[in-house]
Amino acid sequence: MKFQLTASDPKGKARAGIITTAHGEIETPIFMPVGTAGTVKAVHFEELRKQIEAQIILGNTYHLYLRPGLDIIRAAGGLHQFNTWERPILTDSGGYQVYSLADRRKLTEEGARFSSHIDGSKHMFTPEYVMDIQRVLGSDIMMALDECTPYPCDHTYAKKSMEMTHRWLARCCTHFDQTEPLYGFDQALFPIVQGSTYRDLRIQSAEKIASFEREGNAIGGLSVGEPHEMMYEMTELVCGILPADKPRYLMGVGTPANILECIDLGVDMFDCVMPTRNARNGMLFTNQGIINIKNKKWEMDFSAIDEDAHADTSRVHTKAYLRHLFVAGEYLGPMIASINNLSFYLQLVKAARKEIIAGNYKAWKERILPVISRRL
Amino acid sequence: MKFQLTASDPKGKARAGIITTAHGEIETPIFMPVGTAGTVKAVHFEELRKQIEAQIILGNTYHLYLRPGLDIIRAAGGLHQFNTWERPILTDSGGYQVYSLADRRKLTEEGARFSSHIDGSKHMFTPEYVMDIQRVLGSDIMMALDECTPYPCDHTYAKKSMEMTHRWLARCCTHFDQTEPLYGFDQALFPIVQGSTYRDLRIQSAEKIASFEREGNAIGGLSVGEPHEMMYEMTELVCGILPADKPRYLMGVGTPANILECIDLGVDMFDCVMPTRNARNGMLFTNQGIINIKNKKWEMDFSAIDEDAHADTSRVHTKAYLRHLFVAGEYLGPMIASINNLSFYLQLVKAARKEIIAGNYKAWKERILPVISRRL
Repeated sequence: MKFQLTASDPKGKARAGIITTAHGEIETPIFMPVGTAGTVKAVHFEELRKQIEAQIILGNTYHLYLRPGLDIIRAAGGLHQFNTWERPILTDSGGYQVYSLADRRKLTEEGARFSSHIDGSKHMFTPEYVMDIQRVLGSDIMMALDECTPYPCDHTYAKKSMEMTHRWLARCCTHFDQTEPLYGFDQALFPIVQGSTYRDLRIQSAEKIASFEREGNAIGGLSVGEPHEMMYEMTELVCGILPADKPRYLMGVGTPANILECIDLGVDMFDCVMPTRNARNGMLFTNQGIINIKNKKWEMDFSAIDEDAHADTSRVHTKAYLRHLFVAGEYLGPMIASINNLSFYLQLVKAARKEIIAGNYKAWKERILPVISRRL
Repeated sequence: MKFQLTASDPKGKARAGIITTAHGEIETPIFMPVGTAGTVKAVHFEELRKQIEAQIILGNTYHLYLRPGLDIIRAAGGLHQFNTWERPILTDSGGYQVYSLADRRKLTEEGARFSSHIDGSKHMFTPEYVMDIQRVLGSDIMMALDECTPYPCDHTYAKKSMEMTHRWLARCCTHFDQTEPLYGFDQALFPIVQGSTYRDLRIQSAEKIASFEREGNAIGGLSVGEPHEMMYEMTELVCGILPADKPRYLMGVGTPANILECIDLGVDMFDCVMPTRNARNGMLFTNQGIINIKNKKWEMDFSAIDEDAHADTSRVHTKAYLRHLFVAGEYLGPMIASINNLSFYLQLVKAARKEIIAGNYKAWKERILPVISRRL
């Protein structure tokens, strides 16, 4: 994996770059649609390519490990072969999902023991095993096993957890370096900065993570309920420590506004379920603002869902029609809304990249933020 | 509306023709995907055009009348404008849905009184009102209000019901002829032959319906549980009476085998929820046979869903992947399966048409039937 900086904002810390992987290039800053179970929900792959213009998608190790399971994905020749997505894939380590299982999991120095949300079966994710799993998945970018601390979290727990995450990282790196990819192309491993909302811990963690000198670095444990200002503060702090010549990935973030602000702090990669999950609930991101399409006010609105959208379906279909689909509980509602939201996110980071290169990022951000954040 | 016969099978009664409507031509024999609530479930309109090659779709008067309701569709400028489908649309009269409501409806000479399955609200469909409703929907082909009798049904009831359907038809025609289309293009009205499974009633009804000399004729009250042989017998009988120079539409039929057999009896148009409903349940029609994709046997089958499919998604995705999507309850499963099944149906009638024109229909039918009907 290579990372090349194309441009940096002269007035801030935003950067534009290109990540080169075995499955092609990724222009940063980038948003990665979440494809939990090997499919971005309610979206065809052809739409991901053409209408949404996704450059990389995410797969969830926890979900794929449980279903369809490693035997099937190995037999298919990896996740790319299994689902036909030939562009880059990033897989998480399962750490976040295990964290979300709450009373269904127990963390020890050895790893994370948990019971499946599907059938209650017992499993253990060790740092070594999640490397093996991601070798089987064959993602271009693998993530280290970490513990994602909740918010709020006391300093003592946050420190102990961070230190364990660092020890787990060392084991991940050792195992990663001792194993080979299974499908004839290189995979990269990204470590994850933790430390909750404590400046001292975030500094320690960022320095530690940077010292592993992997091909990219991630920031985890944010967007878990803390105020946005706190998330920005931690992101800025960590970005100042993580090396500038490697991509920085802020995990699980966020709203369009969060993304634009964090690009401004030096983040290059984002993922979030928000555009797809909100789409399925009828919440739309548009170039004119945010729409709850189930609202009665759209019942007779025959204007386009988003007249400025890149996605055909958002320009062709009306708000009244989309509202009808949601009210009637039709599949096509979430299908159109998911394309709309993902396309909006991808066009947003594409525009951000263009403005960074043009040296105009901050002014553009200030102009566009109030427009896209307002509720219509 | 015009109907032109292109070719007739020299060895049987199959015909190939072209129906010309205000929204374009329909090559017959044709299958019409069902778009109940103004959307063919789980399918984008672009896919209906490109991958499925649908030439006409159906809308359900009962559903559209209740939701989104006539005010919205009128304000949109009709159903074509509302859902962006610019090719022909046929709407049913609501008779079949009202029949399906069982204890929620009461039929009188005046019409059908029913309570909504959505909110229990009370409504009345008279022959005149369903003409008005279909004027608002703006379908290219409107259907007369009829009573669809159940199977089995005693001769006395079937006769009384048929006679009422005939009187309702007279009222439909009068009202249709006294009203104007709302959106500047012509609409046609098809009457419906009833008579249950009684030869004498079917003959009477077919003669009566033919005497109205509308632009096409439909056969209703079949595919409601009677044996296939009985359906074929009634269809053959009725096709022998309905005029040859007008399209014949067999309502609610059926399996691929039913369609090929009934084409052979002189039917030109079909509709059925089977390809879409079965798709959502994981039952696939392919050129190699019928597949229950949820079956464990497909778990490791990395062959294409249907290597001979016209639809890209069926050639590109594997059975193992589609099975995974169904097992995981992902939207994309029904989405891919619906395109697969509808595409299969449309390619089947397209092939039938080609073979009729080539004078080879019966031989082709005998060859293909056992292949596409077997369960894999």
